[in-house]
Amino acid sequence: MSLDFHLDRANPVALYQQIAEHLKARISDGRLPAGARLPTVRQLASDLGVTRLTVQNAYAELQSAGWIESTVGRGTYVSHNVNGHSFGRGMMAPLTPDGVINDILQVNQIVGLRSMVSASPDPRLFPTEEFWSTLADLQADALAMVLYSSSQGDPQLRVEISQDLTERGIDATPDEILVVAGVTQGLALVSRTLAQPGDTILVEQPTYLGVLHTLKLHGVQAIGVPLDEEGPMLSALEQAILQHRPRFFYTVPTFQNPTGRCMTLERRHAVLELAATHGLIIVEDDIYGRLAYDTPAPPPLYALDTRGQVIFVSSYSKVLMPGLRLGYVVAPQRWADRLLSLRRATDLCSPTLLQRSLALFLRNGGLKRHLRRVLPIYRERRNTLVTALQRNLPPSIRWRSPEGGFCAWLTMPSYHPFSDLEQALLRQGWAVAPGEVFLAEPAQEKSVRICFGNLTPDVINDGVDALSYAIRERLNATTEPAIQRGNWTPLV
Amino acid sequence: MSLDFHLDRANPVALYQQIAEHLKARISDGRLPAGARLPTVRQLASDLGVTRLTVQNAYAELQSAGWIESTVGRGTYVSHNVNGHSFGRGMMAPLTPDGVINDILQVNQIVGLRSMVSASPDPRLFPTEEFWSTLADLQADALAMVLYSSSQGDPQLRVEISQDLTERGIDATPDEILVVAGVTQGLALVSRTLAQPGDTILVEQPTYLGVLHTLKLHGVQAIGVPLDEEGPMLSALEQAILQHRPRFFYTVPTFQNPTGRCMTLERRHAVLELAATHGLIIVEDDIYGRLAYDTPAPPPLYALDTRGQVIFVSSYSKVLMPGLRLGYVVAPQRWADRLLSLRRATDLCSPTLLQRSLALFLRNGGLKRHLRRVLPIYRERRNTLVTALQRNLPPSIRWRSPEGGFCAWLTMPSYHPFSDLEQALLRQGWAVAPGEVFLAEPAQEKSVRICFGNLTPDVINDGVDALSYAIRERLNATTEPAIQRGNWTPLV
Repeated sequence: MSLDFHLDRANPVALYQQIAEHLKARISDGRLPAGARLPTVRQLASDLGVTRLTVQNAYAELQSAGWIESTVGRGTYVSHNVNGHSFGRGMMAPLTPDGVINDILQVNQIVGLRSMVSASPDPRLFPTEEFWSTLADLQADALAMVLYSSSQGDPQLRVEISQDLTERGIDATPDEILVVAGVTQGLALVSRTLAQPGDTILVEQPTYLGVLHTLKLHGVQAIGVPLDEEGPMLSALEQAILQHRPRFFYTVPTFQNPTGRCMTLERRHAVLELAATHGLIIVEDDIYGRLAYDTPAPPPLYALDTRGQVIFVSSYSKVLMPGLRLGYVVAPQRWADRLLSLRRATDLCSPTLLQRSLALFLRNGGLKRHLRRVLPIYRERRNTLVTALQRNLPPSIRWRSPEGGFCAWLTMPSYHPFSDLEQALLRQGWAVAPGEVFLAEPAQEKSVRICFGNLTPDVINDGVDALSYAIRERLNATTEPAIQRGNWTPLV
Repeated sequence: MSLDFHLDRANPVALYQQIAEHLKARISDGRLPAGARLPTVRQLASDLGVTRLTVQNAYAELQSAGWIESTVGRGTYVSHNVNGHSFGRGMMAPLTPDGVINDILQVNQIVGLRSMVSASPDPRLFPTEEFWSTLADLQADALAMVLYSSSQGDPQLRVEISQDLTERGIDATPDEILVVAGVTQGLALVSRTLAQPGDTILVEQPTYLGVLHTLKLHGVQAIGVPLDEEGPMLSALEQAILQHRPRFFYTVPTFQNPTGRCMTLERRHAVLELAATHGLIIVEDDIYGRLAYDTPAPPPLYALDTRGQVIFVSSYSKVLMPGLRLGYVVAPQRWADRLLSLRRATDLCSPTLLQRSLALFLRNGGLKRHLRRVLPIYRERRNTLVTALQRNLPPSIRWRSPEGGFCAWLTMPSYHPFSDLEQALLRQGWAVAPGEVFLAEPAQEKSVRICFGNLTPDVINDGVDALSYAIRERLNATTEPAIQRGNWTPLV
């Protein structure tokens, strides 16, 4: 493909901006179709007689605005809309958590794509002004802010986390807290502390896709434990413990990702009892624990545990800002040194500036104020989602109203003809996460995860409309009578 | 130990500050001696009738000011001076890289301790004002700054790194760059990409202690390849390749940590030839490559390599600010996907705010300006060190003038009676890093690493005086005539 447009060197507009504008125009009028591969930086630079840096700057501007995308070794592609666009590559067979995580991380940068795919807070609600003012305050102590931190984490931040944890009924001193770069790192460190490659662990079925990816790269096998209305099914859990001798059980008991479910208090006690009986270690992910929309969340397993058999992992990515990359692990003493040593071997420490900013923000009550402000907004969005699903979905689709968090989980009456559901939605300009990637074990039925936290009510309604349309399309298309005449009345 | 001082609740000074002041007074007048263990938060809170948070805040303030220190499971200790203080715990037998890294990270927080222990830039030279102004500029794009970044790294930062790499003669497009949280993470990802637990790799002898810790926790065995004046000894390298079939060879060819040595251009070509002959992968750490004080540094192995057999790892921790926790990996295509996937499984991504701040800082020429300003200062410090060592050290001590970087390496004529050298220096209030922790293989002789980058000339002179005194003390104490009457004349 040749891209020899005319550059006006007399023009005060920088050459890289002229190139970016040319490319935007060609993408907009379709001369550069979605998914088209752009020339390499080297090639375009020589075509246009400019330096490679000039072309690199143009590409970077287009990329950060979502017009194009670029990945190691795959080259640069037009990403103006999602038709045939490389977004969704991770959703093509074979589905991998890795590919889908990649899609989820880039989904917000793609112009023209509407997404129910990322379980993230709404950036429009972030307390950015207050946060920037804490950054500015820290210039007074600038030198300390750009030195190494301790690997365990900035002491002032650990003091604030210790206090913040009382909101979840957890009593941990700053010494008992290990600061980590988010729950993903926390789980990676815990997995490497408790399990060796070749070992087996238990997860909920379905579970957080990130942990499946982390475990896979650690060479650890995950066995799924099915959930009922109350939480993990105790009989299945006990059977899996006896059969697989797992190193630990990873659970997200509170407003689980991807289902939005909350384990009942009774089930929490029962799971702890079962763990005690069989010497099972529990790794509890509480990342959504503060996002309760109806009744207050039950106490975490860690707070109910009296035997030191629970490791608690959480972060500020969902309640505050994911870009901080700050979370924490609270572990019984016997694992603390190993976890700290692994953190040191992994990336030494977290950026001091961000740790201290978060510490100040917490100390000033910023998080509580923020949650008071945003929880009603998230609750309204949850309500909008539930109303829309009730109104539009065929009754043969199974789902539950999430009591907190950002996720809802929809299960179809069968796998076919729904296998291409998220692809059909992509063609409508909507992204949802395919259920397959949240499963340690293959399932008989097709599910999808939809997230509502970062969507306004009107967008949620549009999304449910698109979703319902694609579902009904497939229900009607099916050649399986049992499903075609399901126990629902078509509304369209 | 009882600590029942009187708290004045009418006093406008916060209770936690009153507690902190009481403790500082007791530490200063010796009633709380160095190394003394403080009561637990719970105990002191009940002794004083205050909340645990109040005591936690007092301890946090004392800790961040270096009066006390606190580690997971070890409790809280007085660290006002280094006698008997827990600093140096990592230097007690058994010496471990882990323990010494811990000491190095906390050394700057310890009041009264002077240190030649950390190979860090001088924070007093950091361009903090310019950096904070870029932070302030980014508030305009605040929302993007606190969202997730792509796992490969912010595209704008990768464009700037790509351009910055031309300073080292490296031609890499933004797509070929993986942003990582510093060299430690880069090496952890590369090790997990190239080697499995139980595998063997080669390192220089001595080498960077962080990599030894990272490899150990990954279950990978490191074999040391001795260095001569030119670099790794080729015969020893070839023998090790044939004997151990290593997964890769980790080298810091330019201004190596801990020796400060620079591999000659001829040796670089010879090492690349040897690697090609035996299909050896080279992992090159260039973190000090920009810190040349005499002649420009030779090109990196990556730039000289024509066969795609070198992985290049570097960061901005030494040339700019370690607290940024930002570095990068440039790897041949065949490893790129695995590295990216591992980064995603390790901690998802680096903080967008810091990535974009660094991108702006680089784009505005901030790094080049900074290096122009600080290189002459570091050169002067290097010269001061060399002059002081020449003047004060017995000639039986072997060392070389570092041509760049922050480290010098001193080797004693024997192991005994120098085995307690760094402990003796600690008692004088000086910290140096024991050579043992930089070695994959035990050595016959005692070495220490001394760092000068963050010390002013007068402090460097004091440090060399203390070091020379401790060395001569041991030389005179020795019962080995051969050493007692070495080929030097005592000056004291």
